[in-house]
Amino acid sequence: MKELNLVCTKCGIVHSIKSTYFRCQSCGEPTEVEKIEHGKIKTKNPLRQNIMERYQEFLPFKEIDSALSLGEGFTPLVKGYKTSKALELNDVYFKNESQNPTWSFKDRGTLLGIQHALKLGYKRIGTVSTGNMAVSVAAYGSKAGFETFIFVKNDLAPEKLNPIAIYNPHLIKVDGDYGKLYFKSLEIGNKNDIYFINSDVPFRVEGSKTIAYEICEQLNFDMPDYVIVPTSAGGNIRGIIKGFDEFKSAGLINKIPRIVCAQASGCSPITNGFIKNHKSIERIENPQTIAHGIENPFPPSGNEVLRQLEEKNGLCISVDDESILKAQKLLASDGIFGQPASAVPVAAIEKLKKQKILKGDEKIVCIVTGSGLKYTAAFERHNLRHYNTTIDDLEKFVADKF
Amino acid sequence: MKELNLVCTKCGIVHSIKSTYFRCQSCGEPTEVEKIEHGKIKTKNPLRQNIMERYQEFLPFKEIDSALSLGEGFTPLVKGYKTSKALELNDVYFKNESQNPTWSFKDRGTLLGIQHALKLGYKRIGTVSTGNMAVSVAAYGSKAGFETFIFVKNDLAPEKLNPIAIYNPHLIKVDGDYGKLYFKSLEIGNKNDIYFINSDVPFRVEGSKTIAYEICEQLNFDMPDYVIVPTSAGGNIRGIIKGFDEFKSAGLINKIPRIVCAQASGCSPITNGFIKNHKSIERIENPQTIAHGIENPFPPSGNEVLRQLEEKNGLCISVDDESILKAQKLLASDGIFGQPASAVPVAAIEKLKKQKILKGDEKIVCIVTGSGLKYTAAFERHNLRHYNTTIDDLEKFVADKF
Repeated sequence: MKELNLVCTKCGIVHSIKSTYFRCQSCGEPTEVEKIEHGKIKTKNPLRQNIMERYQEFLPFKEIDSALSLGEGFTPLVKGYKTSKALELNDVYFKNESQNPTWSFKDRGTLLGIQHALKLGYKRIGTVSTGNMAVSVAAYGSKAGFETFIFVKNDLAPEKLNPIAIYNPHLIKVDGDYGKLYFKSLEIGNKNDIYFINSDVPFRVEGSKTIAYEICEQLNFDMPDYVIVPTSAGGNIRGIIKGFDEFKSAGLINKIPRIVCAQASGCSPITNGFIKNHKSIERIENPQTIAHGIENPFPPSGNEVLRQLEEKNGLCISVDDESILKAQKLLASDGIFGQPASAVPVAAIEKLKKQKILKGDEKIVCIVTGSGLKYTAAFERHNLRHYNTTIDDLEKFVADKF
Repeated sequence: MKELNLVCTKCGIVHSIKSTYFRCQSCGEPTEVEKIEHGKIKTKNPLRQNIMERYQEFLPFKEIDSALSLGEGFTPLVKGYKTSKALELNDVYFKNESQNPTWSFKDRGTLLGIQHALKLGYKRIGTVSTGNMAVSVAAYGSKAGFETFIFVKNDLAPEKLNPIAIYNPHLIKVDGDYGKLYFKSLEIGNKNDIYFINSDVPFRVEGSKTIAYEICEQLNFDMPDYVIVPTSAGGNIRGIIKGFDEFKSAGLINKIPRIVCAQASGCSPITNGFIKNHKSIERIENPQTIAHGIENPFPPSGNEVLRQLEEKNGLCISVDDESILKAQKLLASDGIFGQPASAVPVAAIEKLKKQKILKGDEKIVCIVTGSGLKYTAAFERHNLRHYNTTIDDLEKFVADKF
């Protein structure tokens, strides 16, 4: 590894990068890899390199094990013509993270986490998750030959359990307070030599930086005004902010987009803190939203997200389930079927437009975090339409009806 | 469009490229775009171009409308270390087409088909499909602003119907002989000005060529010995063969890999024809396989696939459901969860190894056609494992059990 440290995001105390001190040993807040202020993109053909290779100078590894890669990242940035038109905006873009190996953004951070675990000599990895992250860690863990532990909620639906189980991890349903499981897993990890790649660990944040790097490249370094990120634990938005920040320090871009942390009204601890101008978040007691992917009642990086939004003039906004479902259909009209959490930025745009924070001439990037196939229960909430006829009547049916 | 023609794959009769003569007006066999024998790759950063732009010199368009793209293609080619080891082979690679915008290879051909439809002035498109293709055409059709018709089987399960309906096409369930619907749709299309982008139309074949082009680039033009393609209608394998053929003619590669057409035993009309050395396929009366994605009882390009395999010294092989399910788990152990049809090449390798056609030192590319999330009913056929405990007992459970 490079001669960098893990630094507490709040108090700045330094921890060794050759450790799993992912929470500060002094104040308990998340640590992160020291900021990298210099570097350049290794501009080889992306068809013959992976994200660790391309952005190596901005990542904490001297040497890279490319055998760990499943071909994550390099996801498309697609202009949403229909969404732009419907919301009366010039330029809405979608960064489609559903085109990752396990169909969510989590694969970037998992790759980096596994790389770190390997450097530290671990043979076992794990995670606590109810969805995308569990699938991702199970897939990469199997490929890399780790013994892989996945802790999930006791009541996880089979539609979410099976896509984890197919990769054959030690999949354990845990009865009890899910919020406590994050911290419990770190304890168990320390005692049993399991490297837990949880939602906001420093190397997951390093992985998410590459989303920002790719947006810069894809827009030819002509920066967007806003980047809107569905936010749960807070690891992804931290990574995206850090990525832009590092590229600016390195002189690759001139400006950092305004970052919007987007949550669901039914579970919005970070927005609550932001509105009240608090320094720390409060636990949500009865979270309830269709956007399960971001339904985290007590985000472990919540305080750090509040600090970042304040420091960087960011925004925070919450949207209700009805507007999320409407946004999911709008996103689909542009050809992208995202999970409900992925539609939250589109709903956020609509709200920001109504609040006149957005005028209409801004360039906006929405992060589509994962595939709509991940949460098919949402179909029931849509009034989806089809017709019935017979092969003999089909010709007349089409001619008469349309 | 370029000054090319549509040519019958069997009798060679020429049809205008400014038509929808996708079947020969003389012999009824499929037509294809004339072979392109010269060209080079436009080697811009793939993060800032699409497959139509990169491979434009090998595609039938002078001008390209990039607004139609959803960021299809440029999918990873990943080495399968666990599969290689389990099957005692040196080099098995997976071309993971599940990382496309609608999570299957179909998006490549849909993009090209829509481009053609637009050039011909169509405002309506359609397809006949039970799965991947319906989703793909619905997504691209909506994005491009076409009125989109999707004809599906009457008994299509909701898990397949909803992911089509979310894009809001004219989705029509048709009661009657599904095999006849392909030909019926072409009639209806002609009468109602609907451009049908069916399974093996010439522009879908043009889209599939780009799979071969990318494999060449990703292996740095050091060609594999075998490429194994799960085969249903025959459009995808035709495109892959044509792609290698054109790159060889253009001098970009020295050799064409041996192509293996892989089918499921429960529906293997092409393998049956191949084994009997027939010139044409016979309809399968009661198709029955877990690999629904390739369950086509009368592939419209079946005869042309037989001709190509004979001409190019290809192979054809079928594998049973039990071996497909085993292969799906093996593929997942390498971190890739493919739909059952996508596991067919892995099962084919095992059979070819047993038959001593494969020695073990070959470099083999398997096409993973689509995501395992597309067909979750297959989970029931696996004996997937999980454990139960409580948060208080978790630490002891992990320490004792593992």
